[in-house]
Amino acid sequence: MSTVNSLAHAGNAPLIRAMRGERPPVTPVWFMRQAGRSLPEYREVRQGVTMLDACLNPELAATITIQPVKRHGVDAGIFFSDIVVPLRLAGVDVDLHPGAGPVMGQPYRTAADIDKLVAHELTDDALEPIREAVRLTVEQLGRTPLIGFAGAPFTVAAYLAEGRASRDHLAARTLMHADPDAWVRLVTWVASITDQFLGAQIGAGAQAVQLFDSWAGGLSRSDYVQYVAPASVRALASAAEAGIPVVHFGTGTVHLLSALRDVLTEAEVRFPVVGVDYLTPLDEAAGVLGAVPVQGNIDPALLAAPWPVLEAHARDVLRRGLAAPSHVVNLGHGVPPDTDPDVLTRLVELVHETKTL
Amino acid sequence: MSTVNSLAHAGNAPLIRAMRGERPPVTPVWFMRQAGRSLPEYREVRQGVTMLDACLNPELAATITIQPVKRHGVDAGIFFSDIVVPLRLAGVDVDLHPGAGPVMGQPYRTAADIDKLVAHELTDDALEPIREAVRLTVEQLGRTPLIGFAGAPFTVAAYLAEGRASRDHLAARTLMHADPDAWVRLVTWVASITDQFLGAQIGAGAQAVQLFDSWAGGLSRSDYVQYVAPASVRALASAAEAGIPVVHFGTGTVHLLSALRDVLTEAEVRFPVVGVDYLTPLDEAAGVLGAVPVQGNIDPALLAAPWPVLEAHARDVLRRGLAAPSHVVNLGHGVPPDTDPDVLTRLVELVHETKTL
Repeated sequence: MSTVNSLAHAGNAPLIRAMRGERPPVTPVWFMRQAGRSLPEYREVRQGVTMLDACLNPELAATITIQPVKRHGVDAGIFFSDIVVPLRLAGVDVDLHPGAGPVMGQPYRTAADIDKLVAHELTDDALEPIREAVRLTVEQLGRTPLIGFAGAPFTVAAYLAEGRASRDHLAARTLMHADPDAWVRLVTWVASITDQFLGAQIGAGAQAVQLFDSWAGGLSRSDYVQYVAPASVRALASAAEAGIPVVHFGTGTVHLLSALRDVLTEAEVRFPVVGVDYLTPLDEAAGVLGAVPVQGNIDPALLAAPWPVLEAHARDVLRRGLAAPSHVVNLGHGVPPDTDPDVLTRLVELVHETKTL
Repeated sequence: MSTVNSLAHAGNAPLIRAMRGERPPVTPVWFMRQAGRSLPEYREVRQGVTMLDACLNPELAATITIQPVKRHGVDAGIFFSDIVVPLRLAGVDVDLHPGAGPVMGQPYRTAADIDKLVAHELTDDALEPIREAVRLTVEQLGRTPLIGFAGAPFTVAAYLAEGRASRDHLAARTLMHADPDAWVRLVTWVASITDQFLGAQIGAGAQAVQLFDSWAGGLSRSDYVQYVAPASVRALASAAEAGIPVVHFGTGTVHLLSALRDVLTEAEVRFPVVGVDYLTPLDEAAGVLGAVPVQGNIDPALLAAPWPVLEAHARDVLRRGLAAPSHVVNLGHGVPPDTDPDVLTRLVELVHETKTL
């Protein structure tokens, strides 16, 4: 199937319709981190393969992306990747340590460090494994849309400045105030490779994209607006140009929801969607977001609760989602690794069977 | 000096006056985690001594509590301890791993686990090292008040349920929905030993207390109000009875500030103070909190910025604090371990020299 055909098909898909602000007869649902450790078939294919090697092997990335679509019948694939993949493709020394996440060969927190960093170029050739993985995925997904994936500039820059994961992201937050010019160079460079990374996925057939700003909630609103939002706008240039839906998601963003939306507006995204974490009830989020569709926000903690508890919660999320123009069901954060996959399948059935019109 | 004398002296201290809603001529200031790794004299006395051993050695705990008061001239000591100290004193198997924080001998997340946990008793005798440390501290602090310390029930229970630190506190949050009765038994037991722990400090001379709910920000408002607030109220029974100021602080609490205040009101605390993290500007917090004094919220990330940047920020915090009935200056989270202690001393001077009347 050609990319053109898959786009034509995907245009009628419930996911894309909901992301465009329509209310399809069946509410679409997918799960952040649906491709991952909760699935036995994922653990099977990952045996002996590092995370980054899996991300950069087109056949394997496609297989992993498709696994949860086949198993659960979710309404979208989310491209299997990691926020540090564009860094690695640009030649930055970065690795993923199981349990600890991204670890940089060095932190980047002085003007001199950042000079070294921004000398790295992400070439078009380096992105070929990404394009190939997306092509393979889209071909196999058929009518089910593929959502492209990228980490947002702040989250990626926070790892770069700190050198590794951190609770309060002190190194990045110090840098933006102590040396705003150096910070802007850092985060703008990240935005630029992020845009290339998303552009490659879109060019190869991704029918929507999601920008994941895992750490944005650690910023005050004024820091976010001043030091981060412009970079996120820049990271979405290709997506905006393509005219496809863009989901903007972060965790701990109860104070940032309208700022996440404003990034989409500023980037001139044609079909903006805000992903809501589990802290903000969807009807409250809809009150803040106005005309923008919402995605979310079943609490991942309830996936391990007895079914009646989870069911009541999911129905409540669906009901609150009616306050928005349209609603893509998702979790309020990623699937926990020890989740029983059958629970996810049952949740998809529940969402698909629930009449919301 | 007797406890009665120290209380009498402390009553005129700027800290206590500000916590009672007055505006003393000099704005009081102290720093969360002021006693700790940023001080060379702390690193010196901690050589070869584990964190828990330091907490349970009265002379050492007193020495460490007093160090930053001597060095920086802050307006309060904060009792040197750890949130897991009452667990250890109740005989629960818990340790502190450098870099990883509290690690339990086992997680407590089933009804049977919790039966085992709540069978532990915190005896009055076990609290003697705490009382002794507080007596020694108060004696040496003279006119400077000592703030008693405890972790809040949710934060402690989150460690118990998970068995260790976690980002989303899934085990605790699952438990509160999956088995609310078991959760209530768990968090109520923690509240009860927390109350004893604070009561011991108050009985030995602490002139105010602060309840630290580091992880509260990971809860939705409705979960906080339903599953956590009643336990925090219970943890404050002795403090309320004593009629002393109580500071209630959490991080990521931009959506919970009024709920933190409501706990103080519900507990019938005579002099309530809400500690504000670095995410919410103090004037906005004051708008939410009304008649309650605020504590906070210099961004710890700016301690490593050039002085003019930190100075401008601190002046802005002081200015915004004028929107509240009164203001105790503090950071919006703890002192980072690599902070230059001279910066803290200079900050104390700045706050003390700034006219806010």
